[in-house]
Amino acid sequence: MIRENRLKKLAHELSSLGFDGIYLGPSTDLEYISGLDTHPDERVRGLMISKDAQCFAMTPLLYKEEMQNAFGDIPFYAEWNDHEGFTDAFRLGCEKLGLVGKKIAFNDGVRAVDMLAIRDTMDIQLCNGLKVLDPLRSRKDEDELDLLREASGMVDKVVYKLIDFIRPGMTERDIMKMIPQFFEEAGCYEMSFGPIVASGPNGSMPHYSGDKRVIEKNDVIILDLGGRHNGYCSDTTRTLFVGAPTDEQKKVYETVRRAQAAGEAAVRPGATGQDVDRAARKVIVDAGYGDFFFNRVGHGIGLAVHESPFIIEGNDKPLEPGNVFSVEPGIYLPGKFGVRIENLVAVRPDGTGEALNHSPRELTAVKNG
Amino acid sequence: MIRENRLKKLAHELSSLGFDGIYLGPSTDLEYISGLDTHPDERVRGLMISKDAQCFAMTPLLYKEEMQNAFGDIPFYAEWNDHEGFTDAFRLGCEKLGLVGKKIAFNDGVRAVDMLAIRDTMDIQLCNGLKVLDPLRSRKDEDELDLLREASGMVDKVVYKLIDFIRPGMTERDIMKMIPQFFEEAGCYEMSFGPIVASGPNGSMPHYSGDKRVIEKNDVIILDLGGRHNGYCSDTTRTLFVGAPTDEQKKVYETVRRAQAAGEAAVRPGATGQDVDRAARKVIVDAGYGDFFFNRVGHGIGLAVHESPFIIEGNDKPLEPGNVFSVEPGIYLPGKFGVRIENLVAVRPDGTGEALNHSPRELTAVKNG
Repeated sequence: MIRENRLKKLAHELSSLGFDGIYLGPSTDLEYISGLDTHPDERVRGLMISKDAQCFAMTPLLYKEEMQNAFGDIPFYAEWNDHEGFTDAFRLGCEKLGLVGKKIAFNDGVRAVDMLAIRDTMDIQLCNGLKVLDPLRSRKDEDELDLLREASGMVDKVVYKLIDFIRPGMTERDIMKMIPQFFEEAGCYEMSFGPIVASGPNGSMPHYSGDKRVIEKNDVIILDLGGRHNGYCSDTTRTLFVGAPTDEQKKVYETVRRAQAAGEAAVRPGATGQDVDRAARKVIVDAGYGDFFFNRVGHGIGLAVHESPFIIEGNDKPLEPGNVFSVEPGIYLPGKFGVRIENLVAVRPDGTGEALNHSPRELTAVKNG
Repeated sequence: MIRENRLKKLAHELSSLGFDGIYLGPSTDLEYISGLDTHPDERVRGLMISKDAQCFAMTPLLYKEEMQNAFGDIPFYAEWNDHEGFTDAFRLGCEKLGLVGKKIAFNDGVRAVDMLAIRDTMDIQLCNGLKVLDPLRSRKDEDELDLLREASGMVDKVVYKLIDFIRPGMTERDIMKMIPQFFEEAGCYEMSFGPIVASGPNGSMPHYSGDKRVIEKNDVIILDLGGRHNGYCSDTTRTLFVGAPTDEQKKVYETVRRAQAAGEAAVRPGATGQDVDRAARKVIVDAGYGDFFFNRVGHGIGLAVHESPFIIEGNDKPLEPGNVFSVEPGIYLPGKFGVRIENLVAVRPDGTGEALNHSPRELTAVKNG
């Protein structure tokens, strides 16, 4: 059902930004407003919200029952049939809400091709709605924080299970296949992203997506894991060693560990996302590995795995109580190995940081056979 | 690696459409041209192709290694860092290829918000690139047809395994959880979409996504299943009965079975997508269930589960040899049950249809306990 208080805050946000309405395609924005968790496909569906807090729903007949279950009693369901296409329904909805010719923002659940089809069939001013809901979503309330704590506790259990499970001779795929089961045993029944199991030289690709390599003795393995618990995401990374690390591996690991701790410690009253990025990055640069850490230190998390606030150079907005984000520095050595350590951190009312993950960050080795 | 012959055909297509270039975000279009199978996220990446068959790649540094592995030796990698944002890199790429101010099509892998960010930072004419690659992709070559046949053989095996497996007392989720394993046993290691297991009254929602209901005696269960084999998708639906069906269930099932067969039989030289839709739909309308079948009869399939050609009223383009699509009529009775039967069909060089699925379409009951 549409959450009236969130809808009203969004309408207020639209007014202050000078937008007449926002159209939300299938996305976590839409889930935040209505609870509807659905995935985009070529059948255009979503919710238009005007600055007067009026709504219409784009409703392919194929999804009508689901849409009505999700949205309940709203002013207008703009229905369309496969063979009619969606643009007439969209225009009709805009007419009902007085939005023809007005400034309409589109969020990140809308495909460029669908927005262009709308542009080509009606008078409308297209606006970028990427960040409209950020101020609402980035300040989690107590219920949301509790769900994020619970989700993080579950993923920590998965880490412990993996430390017991991983042995040389398994493939990355063997490990990946166990992860959903470990999540289920921890009480979490949905993945927030496909887990990353990047062993040996594959670890130098931060978003490695393969699964074929066999784990060898003395490997370094990056495990990046996240589940979704009542809609809210976990996300943690641990880097495990198979047997004893080399001196170089120890040095790199220790550098990343100190960088991650420095990032967490930088969450203080008045600190910005940029401050946290710099604090973590400085440790890596000072150790001589600056060229091998080329991405941001972290990202906000909630209904989406990646959302506002971003922990990145250039984000000079002070962090706010209720913000939850990752702190995940890494060092990626092409052809050799990678190390990343990631905790989620919530900003307390006093501006300090509460780490949500508690599995070991100390160098941890699994058995070498 | 970029497939040169496909790239050249695409450049030719751009010229004939009057576009100066097309930008492909993460999508099956991009996979068709380059083999790169990657998922969209907030880090903008993809490939621009000009009508002169020149390219540049949008390259977040985080994905650089993967992008270079996929695209190889192309004129320009437009690289960008998380904290710089992507729009400068995009403009630089357009400058290198002489595309500033020109007509650029965007495909369905691009988010509206990212296209708007580009619009706001450079001179460009935005065009809808949704269907640019359809003429290339919808005519499968022999290699592609073989992969689709193999993929379909695998999903047929999954159907047989499910007929043996399903019993009353299981939840929909218990069944869903076995499906990836059954696919693996059949040699298929990736799903093309989340399987649908819609039992009892849930069957009235064609794209039902729940999983909680317990299978009861005398249920009707819709199973909609698809895997991905070397990139190519399978997609089949069978409706099973638990124990003996009622007279109404028998009548509905037999109507859908005849409609599905009529759709397949309508694949003849010169037939259009609309002809196939009408042939299947007529059987359902004539039986008095026209109000309970409200979507198209089918969709093309290949690298994407849904692609051109669509089997739908209004598609009056003759089917072509190499087209592959689903024929999947259904009857959806709210609060009661649903029935759908789906086969993939390939158009032979002589214009007749080759069914790719061979699991039973006759009424099939699993044991009632």
